[in-house]
Amino acid sequence: MELTISQLAEKLGAKLAGSGSGKVGAANSVALAQSNEVTFAGSKKFFPLLRQSKAGAVIIGQQVENLRMPQLIVGNVDAALINVLNLFAPKLKDVPEGIDPTAKTGQDVKIGKGAYIGPKAVIDDGVEIGKDTIVHSGSKIGQNTKIGESCQIHSNVVIYHNCQLGNNVIIQANSTIGSVGYGYALIDGKHTLIPHNGGVVIEDCVEIGANCCVDRAKFNNTVIGAGTKIDNLVQIGHNTVIGKCCLIVGQTGIAGSCKLGDGVVLSGQVGVIDNIDIGDGAMIAAKSTVFKSLEAGGKVMGTPAIDSRLELRAIAFRKRLPELSKQLRDLTSRIERLESSKDNKS
Amino acid sequence: MELTISQLAEKLGAKLAGSGSGKVGAANSVALAQSNEVTFAGSKKFFPLLRQSKAGAVIIGQQVENLRMPQLIVGNVDAALINVLNLFAPKLKDVPEGIDPTAKTGQDVKIGKGAYIGPKAVIDDGVEIGKDTIVHSGSKIGQNTKIGESCQIHSNVVIYHNCQLGNNVIIQANSTIGSVGYGYALIDGKHTLIPHNGGVVIEDCVEIGANCCVDRAKFNNTVIGAGTKIDNLVQIGHNTVIGKCCLIVGQTGIAGSCKLGDGVVLSGQVGVIDNIDIGDGAMIAAKSTVFKSLEAGGKVMGTPAIDSRLELRAIAFRKRLPELSKQLRDLTSRIERLESSKDNKS
Amino acid sequence: MELTISQLAEKLGAKLAGSGSGKVGAANSVALAQSNEVTFAGSKKFFPLLRQSKAGAVIIGQQVENLRMPQLIVGNVDAALINVLNLFAPKLKDVPEGIDPTAKTGQDVKIGKGAYIGPKAVIDDGVEIGKDTIVHSGSKIGQNTKIGESCQIHSNVVIYHNCQLGNNVIIQANSTIGSVGYGYALIDGKHTLIPHNGGVVIEDCVEIGANCCVDRAKFNNTVIGAGTKIDNLVQIGHNTVIGKCCLIVGQTGIAGSCKLGDGVVLSGQVGVIDNIDIGDGAMIAAKSTVFKSLEAGGKVMGTPAIDSRLELRAIAFRKRLPELSKQLRDLTSRIERLESSKDNKS
Repeated sequence: MELTISQLAEKLGAKLAGSGSGKVGAANSVALAQSNEVTFAGSKKFFPLLRQSKAGAVIIGQQVENLRMPQLIVGNVDAALINVLNLFAPKLKDVPEGIDPTAKTGQDVKIGKGAYIGPKAVIDDGVEIGKDTIVHSGSKIGQNTKIGESCQIHSNVVIYHNCQLGNNVIIQANSTIGSVGYGYALIDGKHTLIPHNGGVVIEDCVEIGANCCVDRAKFNNTVIGAGTKIDNLVQIGHNTVIGKCCLIVGQTGIAGSCKLGDGVVLSGQVGVIDNIDIGDGAMIAAKSTVFKSLEAGGKVMGTPAIDSRLELRAIAFRKRLPELSKQLRDLTSRIERLESSKDNKS
Repeated sequence: MELTISQLAEKLGAKLAGSGSGKVGAANSVALAQSNEVTFAGSKKFFPLLRQSKAGAVIIGQQVENLRMPQLIVGNVDAALINVLNLFAPKLKDVPEGIDPTAKTGQDVKIGKGAYIGPKAVIDDGVEIGKDTIVHSGSKIGQNTKIGESCQIHSNVVIYHNCQLGNNVIIQANSTIGSVGYGYALIDGKHTLIPHNGGVVIEDCVEIGANCCVDRAKFNNTVIGAGTKIDNLVQIGHNTVIGKCCLIVGQTGIAGSCKLGDGVVLSGQVGVIDNIDIGDGAMIAAKSTVFKSLEAGGKVMGTPAIDSRLELRAIAFRKRLPELSKQLRDLTSRIERLESSKDNKS
Repeated sequence: MELTISQLAEKLGAKLAGSGSGKVGAANSVALAQSNEVTFAGSKKFFPLLRQSKAGAVIIGQQVENLRMPQLIVGNVDAALINVLNLFAPKLKDVPEGIDPTAKTGQDVKIGKGAYIGPKAVIDDGVEIGKDTIVHSGSKIGQNTKIGESCQIHSNVVIYHNCQLGNNVIIQANSTIGSVGYGYALIDGKHTLIPHNGGVVIEDCVEIGANCCVDRAKFNNTVIGAGTKIDNLVQIGHNTVIGKCCLIVGQTGIAGSCKLGDGVVLSGQVGVIDNIDIGDGAMIAAKSTVFKSLEAGGKVMGTPAIDSRLELRAIAFRKRLPELSKQLRDLTSRIERLESSKDNKS
């Protein structure tokens, strides 16, 4: 699909500065966009690059003077970009409604209107799937699990029994929800698995990446709060309760029985040991390991994670360690000289 | 299901102190348990919390004086908790016996009595499945692989050809057993995969979490020793041999050709490079990276991992680095003053 | 299968030193090989071990004097080992040609000659599969994705729509290719997913391990360059472009919009934050975290990653920190003594 720049301006509710006659059919970055693509400048740092860009037009928050290319001036560049990407999304076949004949569904299964169960999916007894939800091919939904409306469960996802998903939840391919947590008791010298009678609750608008694991709870539920977004290959331990609108980046692991507030940000490859409380809005830098509970708004980094400013100073000194040691040796010999000169005098 | 506290005491072989007439139908933590739930106190640190707990009863190792709630006094609290959780486990449909009609099985497949092959599972030629073993939906068992008795292979697990699993093995969803290891030789300037003719041996009572990878061996076998428990998203490299009753926590990776003794504990996100020997009972702290072989009973942490006491002291000094540097500058100027005063005198 | 050592020498084009009459049927390491197995010595460090080895013969680059066992002298030991492993590979059933009747294929699907689609696989509309490519059981290939010739897509892999794979690509079980990347914009206080209109391009001879994730691009493509080899549980972020013949070891994560040159080596559990450039041939040590772009040939380690020599020196001093602090205290008191003695004199 292609649109003239005028048409695009109209669809975005944008003010157009420059010619509206060119045509664009895709979005692209400032550096890579071609004349049939629209680019975007979310902040002023992109303005100089725009002068070299080959893009056919730019979506921008304020008009830039003396710019060759047509400008689509909008209130929110990110929101306009999302609109543009949806306009130019690659055409895919409409998802049908109903149950693919190669899927297998158990007894007492309820499937909402507009919902679709893909090929080779396995839906166990007592499952409920809300309207307009898509369960893609090869997925498994365990007994009595309830999935809300307009969710997308991608291919080969496994959701165990007795889990609850809200509305507008997305789970990408090959993720596992509701596996038994890593809880063992040493009984007669053997590590013995503690049964996990609880479940997993995933609230509205949660999005979970590919190849993630969310373990079920021993009692009650492991909870992922509404609006929280989780990247790929993330591990969420049993009984952990995560607040709303958190961001959890790839390969991060949160052990069992942790409690995260709202708006917490965990960068990539972070580790959080078990039974930790993390307050609202705390931010944890990439690769850090959290061994102590953290107040709201705290910013930490390192292993063990400490206040980010302290850690940044420690990092700066890390490189100077050999030099400090040399200074120490130097001072020692100067003191020895002073001491011996004093001794000589006395 | 609900039981009176007297009935529960009888089932647990517990001594009951207090009224046995209340009813409970679930277990829960001290903090969250309600009047229709039983809680447990595995150590004295929970005793003060018990006084505020709303639980209907407590499983406890020794009687606490002046406690309002009925006490179920047992020899082993953990074992009693496991019993209780099994008593109150959510009711699921009985697993049937035999092969689901939507599974596909090859030639010369042997399936033991009481075993079950779930929907959409694919069982290749020459596979043997022991009695009472369950292969859940969507799993793939490769050629000539032998699985023992009473195992649980959860949904969408892939086990490649020529692997051997003992009895009572559990593998959770989306894990991969027997993939080709990461072994390349540079031939004519190209990284060329070294064929992996070996397999994987998983001994009795091993439990492996979700989305794990255990690579097959170049020669002989990658081995996971009896009773070893592995958490989610763990990587075990080719030809690595792991001893008995080890604990390997989430997102840990062990590279190829390592040898772990018995009872080794690797916390979360640990890395072990290739060709490392780790002695019996060694413990490696979370996020550590092991670059050197480790004696039995060793306790290490950090990257590279060093003796835990040394690392803890280094960590304590890490925060003091800027201060040490300031002290050094201060001493330097004091020495300069001393030196110049000496010069003036001579 | 067994061969006499003479037959093996002939097949390898090796010069035989010693008796050719013994028989071998497998390869094994110097330490473990038995009399019916051939071993190999890729470097001189193995020569002493050879004298104790029970192997029936050794593949070696230059003849060793006074060695009891027959020697197969070859120009390239690694290449010969690969040949031997292929000769002695366990016999598996020939992969058939065509589409398994339990697979599901959509409309306008093109399957090349000699290709095979395994049981329970799901091939969406418009997919093209090149000749001699194998799509193993339970895999899902999304709409319009094109896979080249002689590829192996192992069981339960998910490849989303509009991805392109070259020839001789291997993807191991449970990996996910083309999932939506972790890109959110904060719109009206909500993290809102940015649509990902781009795809993934995987060039010739790329090999990807088990349970990996390669995210699709927002615009254009995420690219894995020809000959790059990726281990298990690796994460490749959206829009990242990886060069040719890179090695990316297990559990490493590369965030979005990075650019790696050719021949880059990332060891295990490495993290690379977003928008990083890494030059040709750079090497990053295990568990390091790369926060800054890196020149060609750079060698870095640590978190944050710095020049490896600097980091190794910092590590050496890390253990000495408590000792340095003690020295500093000692010097301080000696200076105090000097100062007070000076004061006494004046």
